[in-house]
Amino acid sequence: MKLLTFHREGRLALGMRTEQGVLDVTAAAATRGEGRQVPMTIGAAIEGGDEARRTLEALAAQADGDAELWLDEDALQLGPCVTAPGKIICVGLNYRKHAEETNAAIPAYPILFNKFNNTLAAHGEDIPLPRVSSEVDYEAELVVVIGRTAKNVGREQALDHVYGYCCVNDLSARDLQMRTPQWLLGKTCDKFSPLGPYLVTADEVGDPNALAISAVVNGETRQSSSTSDMIFRCDEIVSYISRHMTLSPGDIILTGTPEGVVLGLPPERRVYLQPGDVVEIAIEKLGTLRNRMTAE
Amino acid sequence: MKLLTFHREGRLALGMRTEQGVLDVTAAAATRGEGRQVPMTIGAAIEGGDEARRTLEALAAQADGDAELWLDEDALQLGPCVTAPGKIICVGLNYRKHAEETNAAIPAYPILFNKFNNTLAAHGEDIPLPRVSSEVDYEAELVVVIGRTAKNVGREQALDHVYGYCCVNDLSARDLQMRTPQWLLGKTCDKFSPLGPYLVTADEVGDPNALAISAVVNGETRQSSSTSDMIFRCDEIVSYISRHMTLSPGDIILTGTPEGVVLGLPPERRVYLQPGDVVEIAIEKLGTLRNRMTAE
Repeated sequence: MKLLTFHREGRLALGMRTEQGVLDVTAAAATRGEGRQVPMTIGAAIEGGDEARRTLEALAAQADGDAELWLDEDALQLGPCVTAPGKIICVGLNYRKHAEETNAAIPAYPILFNKFNNTLAAHGEDIPLPRVSSEVDYEAELVVVIGRTAKNVGREQALDHVYGYCCVNDLSARDLQMRTPQWLLGKTCDKFSPLGPYLVTADEVGDPNALAISAVVNGETRQSSSTSDMIFRCDEIVSYISRHMTLSPGDIILTGTPEGVVLGLPPERRVYLQPGDVVEIAIEKLGTLRNRMTAE
Repeated sequence: MKLLTFHREGRLALGMRTEQGVLDVTAAAATRGEGRQVPMTIGAAIEGGDEARRTLEALAAQADGDAELWLDEDALQLGPCVTAPGKIICVGLNYRKHAEETNAAIPAYPILFNKFNNTLAAHGEDIPLPRVSSEVDYEAELVVVIGRTAKNVGREQALDHVYGYCCVNDLSARDLQMRTPQWLLGKTCDKFSPLGPYLVTADEVGDPNALAISAVVNGETRQSSSTSDMIFRCDEIVSYISRHMTLSPGDIILTGTPEGVVLGLPPERRVYLQPGDVVEIAIEKLGTLRNRMTAE
């Protein structure tokens, strides 16, 4: 199942994307809900887990053919596909070739840092390049969305706690990131985490460590790898984090980026993002996230 | 004005502490509210700003002498004095003598990192020392609570965006903090940010950089300093952060700790926190935050 959010009347409504288009969940629930507990927000869908997923799937089946309930995706202004994560946890240097390109040692443990919710942005949304930086870089990353509370979870059970996956562009102001020993400042400028277009449920994705992943800037492929190159795989990341803090439904984990970022180039060849640049992050089964950079 | 939260019927109710005791805001609003917009949660009080503060002060004046509306603080089980911050931002190495004791250079810019909301805990709450660490340290810190959205705010206007202040114990698992270059892992174990006992509004505090601050472990004073020793003062911190990300009402900033932590001792003299240890963080005008450590 592919979920998305879209702007309507000042709120973020829930949509479900199928081959017919985007199901207007609010409208479908009103006419076809029949007393069922239909989740009306992406947060409710995540917290509702498998049961809510089956409810939405049944709703879509019932709405089949009822043109009024299906929206044209191109006409929608999307929101972030997760709207209010309790945590945005990032794993640094988690692809072998990316660690190599930045001359970093292969980490012995996951390197964890964070971004805040001011970074959330949507597929299609313009991203202002902040005045305080001249070195904004892209990073294609697979996002793990937690579905069930996880505390001290073993690796074998870890993926049972995952609701689904999506694409993120983990935008990074390298000058700010490297200004002090802690990376946060360069990671959490406003709108630095466009997320989407879809939140795809785990059952539809299968093995999260067997997905092609790429970043394309103005039509030129810059990153092209597979999530199989991760040093710490998704199950290990979830298990490791859960042994150090409680993970809650809606928390998201950005699992690191493969080689091919601007920072990985020799200094004389580094051209950071400029206003007007369009960055596309594509991950197999998850769709393509597209954003244009603008001047702040 | 001193605000607190306390557990009642599965929720965190709002209280206002005066010399008479703790005003039960919910009960007072019901009998004395007279159609006024009385904030019922700490979040609503913060978002309501000066107007909500005046409403609460008027309510307390009206409740004067009505014993039913005043609670005995010692009989309450407090909650964290800020319950759902959108961000917990920490400033590292922000006191001169603490930077010196840890052999770190005096930073040229604020070093920012974070904790997540799983770390929130209350005055009086037991703190489990996590099994995954054997080096949990205390850190007495002044917390700045943001009251108004702040983006690109100058230093002169910065404190106008502050709602108030409180104490925190920025508990830190040193072994986890130093395991990788990023400190997050050792900072964000469950309940690692007891916060309180009171959120004290800015008008009552005055200059936040002229407050005595201390940490006492089992009756022994370990940290004793003044917030005047900060390298980056509160106005500068708020201004600096606002130039890099949007600050929102309820966001909290932990402004760093003075010298005297366990990590500052020679290695052979370091005794980290043990189950049964009681840590008290006191800041002038803000009260004393007390927590007992337990085994996980």
